[in-house]
Amino acid sequence: MAASPVAPASFETGAARPPQDEVSRVPHRGAKADFRWEGVEMRPYKEDERALYKTITRQVLFSDPDMAGELRYFEVAPGGFSALERHQHMHAVLILRGRGHCLVGDEVKRLETRDLVTVPPMTWHQFRATADEPLGFLCMVDAQRDRPQLPTAEDVARLEQDPQIAGFLSGKPRA
Amino acid sequence: MAASPVAPASFETGAARPPQDEVSRVPHRGAKADFRWEGVEMRPYKEDERALYKTITRQVLFSDPDMAGELRYFEVAPGGFSALERHQHMHAVLILRGRGHCLVGDEVKRLETRDLVTVPPMTWHQFRATADEPLGFLCMVDAQRDRPQLPTAEDVARLEQDPQIAGFLSGKPRA
Repeated sequence: MAASPVAPASFETGAARPPQDEVSRVPHRGAKADFRWEGVEMRPYKEDERALYKTITRQVLFSDPDMAGELRYFEVAPGGFSALERHQHMHAVLILRGRGHCLVGDEVKRLETRDLVTVPPMTWHQFRATADEPLGFLCMVDAQRDRPQLPTAEDVARLEQDPQIAGFLSGKPRA
Repeated sequence: MAASPVAPASFETGAARPPQDEVSRVPHRGAKADFRWEGVEMRPYKEDERALYKTITRQVLFSDPDMAGELRYFEVAPGGFSALERHQHMHAVLILRGRGHCLVGDEVKRLETRDLVTVPPMTWHQFRATADEPLGFLCMVDAQRDRPQLPTAEDVARLEQDPQIAGFLSGKPRA
């Protein structure tokens, strides 16, 4: 496989268990303003030095040793994007806030609030917010999952052979 | 355990695999009006003859042989409620639409849009919509899970010893 030879710097990976696990069985956690939640830590905006992702936050809403899945909320700031990556585990995404575009495999799709996105195993994918509002989405994954792979320069060059994908990757998506 | 001796008639159970599994890897499924989705079948409103649940619909948003979790959308009509039940598997719930109340164990909680509810293993739970609008919620579960247990008359009598729970169960929740 044409996986990146270096350890992936995906935004998604990090501590195996987020800090809020201790309270994950609190029966009720209220929603707060601006898509925050009681008892849920927000991993702050951070720019990747290699520009693999831009201005995206993560909140782990559900993660429990007795659940096989996890549910996270990611929010991409206006003009931001998630990492272009692939992995064996799947992503099941529901857009909770705003609009944007996604790349899944060789398809670029326009996203509206509440749309559903399925990322099959080992499929390149990326999410991009529109310029004027945040793009927030729920993402269900297996609790046990592999680490993301980042594209090599060759992978990116191959993807960019498709003009629509090239436009998406350069921040000018059309779908 | 004081489980119901009869096979549970939970709304939740049914076909092991919903019909939309064939298309579950469609990368993008658009949101439609009124909390419906392209390519997602809605199990219609149905009243249980024993009044175990009332006017609730189910849509399976994500279910895939390669995912350990499933994500479903339930919608309770105004004044309706889900089954009072318990089971070994957990529920991870995010309120997507409207308001209402829930019972989780011995706690009655008021629910607002985007609130989070965690139902631990073998914990009695029920969701109720307000009288004036639907209550819609996402529910993540393990794909492999046990069947719900319904309460016996003794279970209900024990729950009703708590005035707040009795009010909730009779459709007059206070939280």
